[in-house]
Amino acid sequence: MRIIHPIAKMQSLAESLRNQGRTIGFVPTMGFLHEGHLSLMRAARQECDTVVASIFVNPTQFGPGEDLERYPRDADGDRIKCEDARVDYLFMPAAADMYPEKPSVFVTVEGLSDVLEGAIRPGHFSGVATVVSKLFHIVKPHKAFFGQKDYQQCAVIKRMVSGLNLDVKIIVLPTVRDQSGLAMSSRNSYLRDDERRCAAVIHRALSDAEQLVRNGVRQPEELKKAIRRILAGEQGVSIEYVEIADPDSLTPLTSEQSRMVMLVAVRLGRTRLIDNLLVL
Amino acid sequence: MRIIHPIAKMQSLAESLRNQGRTIGFVPTMGFLHEGHLSLMRAARQECDTVVASIFVNPTQFGPGEDLERYPRDADGDRIKCEDARVDYLFMPAAADMYPEKPSVFVTVEGLSDVLEGAIRPGHFSGVATVVSKLFHIVKPHKAFFGQKDYQQCAVIKRMVSGLNLDVKIIVLPTVRDQSGLAMSSRNSYLRDDERRCAAVIHRALSDAEQLVRNGVRQPEELKKAIRRILAGEQGVSIEYVEIADPDSLTPLTSEQSRMVMLVAVRLGRTRLIDNLLVL
Repeated sequence: MRIIHPIAKMQSLAESLRNQGRTIGFVPTMGFLHEGHLSLMRAARQECDTVVASIFVNPTQFGPGEDLERYPRDADGDRIKCEDARVDYLFMPAAADMYPEKPSVFVTVEGLSDVLEGAIRPGHFSGVATVVSKLFHIVKPHKAFFGQKDYQQCAVIKRMVSGLNLDVKIIVLPTVRDQSGLAMSSRNSYLRDDERRCAAVIHRALSDAEQLVRNGVRQPEELKKAIRRILAGEQGVSIEYVEIADPDSLTPLTSEQSRMVMLVAVRLGRTRLIDNLLVL
Repeated sequence: MRIIHPIAKMQSLAESLRNQGRTIGFVPTMGFLHEGHLSLMRAARQECDTVVASIFVNPTQFGPGEDLERYPRDADGDRIKCEDARVDYLFMPAAADMYPEKPSVFVTVEGLSDVLEGAIRPGHFSGVATVVSKLFHIVKPHKAFFGQKDYQQCAVIKRMVSGLNLDVKIIVLPTVRDQSGLAMSSRNSYLRDDERRCAAVIHRALSDAEQLVRNGVRQPEELKKAIRRILAGEQGVSIEYVEIADPDSLTPLTSEQSRMVMLVAVRLGRTRLIDNLLVL
């Protein structure tokens, strides 16, 4: 595995790989890799000739007061994990190279970016869309792999790709969970042991709601109430939102629909956690 | 020359040209081609293996009340001119394919987009940056050619390219003028004969100011006054702005500088005309 820092080097390498007829699979990450990231890398390994992963903690998607400074990092551990996952190139650009000046160019996805996470974290998805577009231009992937855990992010990126006619196939893979059902996230490292045990309630609430759906309960308000009730049963969990939305537009549903995504954001102490469950 | 309408066809063709190792030169236009456009096509012909021109009157860069509906069109004439200029592929997408839904994805270039043309035409440069980014993703050029007449547009596009790490070289070629000095523009077709004669004052004013600079007059305020005085000498010319700005940031200059761009926008009857002159 080669580690690449300069943007120009990564870009010319990607260009030459494409010119050789090799397909490029890309897994953009913010590092502190876990089994979720690795599942994406393994999928890229299966589907593409060359696998590029990136590690870049993108400052522009963090709001003031968010966890940019304390975001967990482990460059050495990440390198070993990428090697084990048979990544070919690990791209680790410097922030000063990605943003040599105060950013003035932005990609925005209106509507999708303004609800749920976007309502709580203004500017977050513009930061995400912009950096992903930059990374796509640098890494030139045929396919890019994202985890469903960040459901809204996936929706924003898919919309960006179609809106800007980017020639990249977006592949969304299932959320990887620990034994308790907690969705893998680099931010889980913030959790104390007792908080981590509490956090399992998120997936339990969503799974129970899914069971309700299977049993014929499809009224969004009822499902949301059920999820809230289960979440509230765990002390220390404070709910930021519980929503049932259209899986494509993320518009909140007000009536029974066959397709829906259930999305949850909670706080556990200082830690924000999100999760979701798709019902099709 | 092949004419291509479907986006997917243009994109896969561009990909296969690149895979064959051919360099792509791209001239995006809104049609009603004139000598300015043709000079760009000839330059692309000289510098690249394959020349793609596009004709697309992009609705999102027109504001309400602007001239979208009456913008001049001449598909047959344009086709012949492109053939004469030895264009290989003429890409003419349908608006309904470029924007299948109400646009929700935007590329914005803050700062540069908000002054001069951008101040008078809010949203214009976001429309331009977005459509150029779409076209770049579809046509996949190595080099793209623009005319200096739209100076601010060139600055916005160059900033977009660096801000989003697009792997495209932007080449700006000199403004082509008619015998009177009037900058070639599709919108010149709106001018009556007498208005067209008046319009020559724009370049005369800028050239006279350039002469003043050569004679040592470099105070922006003095130069602007001189330009305004000459423009005011022509009846029917109403000034929208006269500015002396930094050539890169387009920030108005308040003191003597060696590098400057002088920019003018006027109205002649219903017609808006812009022009500029670079002093380095």
